[in-house]
Amino acid sequence: MKFTSAQLDDGVLERAFTLDGIPGILWTPESASVPVPLVLLGHPGGLHAMHSRLAGRARASVVEHGFAAATIELPGGGERPRSAAAEQARSDLRRALAAGDPVDEIVDRLVLPLVDNAVPEWQAALDALLALPEVRGPVGFSGGPIAIGIRFAVVEPRITAAVLFAGSFVPAAMFDEARQLTIPLQVLLQWDDEGNDRQAALDLFDALGSKEKTLHANMGGHAGVPQSEVTGGAQFFARHSS
Amino acid sequence: MKFTSAQLDDGVLERAFTLDGIPGILWTPESASVPVPLVLLGHPGGLHAMHSRLAGRARASVVEHGFAAATIELPGGGERPRSAAAEQARSDLRRALAAGDPVDEIVDRLVLPLVDNAVPEWQAALDALLALPEVRGPVGFSGGPIAIGIRFAVVEPRITAAVLFAGSFVPAAMFDEARQLTIPLQVLLQWDDEGNDRQAALDLFDALGSKEKTLHANMGGHAGVPQSEVTGGAQFFARHSS
Repeated sequence: MKFTSAQLDDGVLERAFTLDGIPGILWTPESASVPVPLVLLGHPGGLHAMHSRLAGRARASVVEHGFAAATIELPGGGERPRSAAAEQARSDLRRALAAGDPVDEIVDRLVLPLVDNAVPEWQAALDALLALPEVRGPVGFSGGPIAIGIRFAVVEPRITAAVLFAGSFVPAAMFDEARQLTIPLQVLLQWDDEGNDRQAALDLFDALGSKEKTLHANMGGHAGVPQSEVTGGAQFFARHSS
Repeated sequence: MKFTSAQLDDGVLERAFTLDGIPGILWTPESASVPVPLVLLGHPGGLHAMHSRLAGRARASVVEHGFAAATIELPGGGERPRSAAAEQARSDLRRALAAGDPVDEIVDRLVLPLVDNAVPEWQAALDALLALPEVRGPVGFSGGPIAIGIRFAVVEPRITAAVLFAGSFVPAAMFDEARQLTIPLQVLLQWDDEGNDRQAALDLFDALGSKEKTLHANMGGHAGVPQSEVTGGAQFFARHSS
């Protein structure tokens, strides 16, 4: 893990890093005398375009609760090399959605390889982050794509709580993995999400195996998650880190 | 409004009162130098049996946010005279549920008169509470039955935000009133509520007219609302009272 830049903004130290060529960002409290818990921030890909939203989510945990927060670029996202198969699936998906055609097979082609590739990268990032003297567990995962969050939380026992965003297409095969989850979950659903079927999202919530799970459904489209959920997500991790 | 008892418990002054023969309880901060906002606490009836849960909800607003909280007994609840028609409807409902028979007509007989009778009493209580020097608006309504909360918020412009509990039978006629709501809403749903149909509750949430509404669905049965929702409800009112 190599830090490539650092800046201090109102009590929060933000450092860009690369890990085996994958860009990432780490946010920590400016002054922390002991190692702090960590929240990993999922996102749809494109660290640069997502920066202000990610930084806002990071600040909610760093400033209010003294946690660290970190994220890495997704495979094929931002400046990382595109996969021809993923680009083809993405274009097929757009066409199928516009035509009202079935999308299940396309979603499998798009999402399953992404999950297979991304989760080991998140695990490597977690190894590197927990090796830093200023960071310790417990570790939470926040955000999407929900298929990555589900797989990551199933295979990685160091993830102790998750806030998942029910706003992506989820392969049917992931429902079996969803049933294996046992950690506390908070699930965000945008009620009128243009890129997500509401009933499918409710079915996925129902399938999640955790005894302690809460669905927070808010009005509006895919990008309309209210600020209160950012604050609430940080509070959720704080409740589950002590 | 006549206060009948008062006790101080860890910074919170709890006073029992009667208003035109209806028992009620008011909780206020022990020391408040200015009049404070008010949260009205709905409940299924039976102040005595509900006391510890109501006091816990009151404390979340009084201790953390310096609000006042108050409640009154429902028509036919606790020590108040029973209505023969309501008792008959309640018994019919139990029998229909046990037999798997349709309940819509029975729910109408049970809930609509309750709403018609209870809401004017809540309005009279609100008049009396706002006349106290230590209480002012804004006013929030929290709890159930949701049919009372919907009617109360539709007819009473002094209610500026509500946390509704989607855990009661709702007459079909109330859906039209639900569409008229415009205030910010937080709706609690127990995912496996033995006394409530999940799809009907989701349909009711969808019908609520407010642009700013959030559904919080938690695992477990009717009485299993987690403590985090009590805290979260108090925070919701604090956000909407400034």
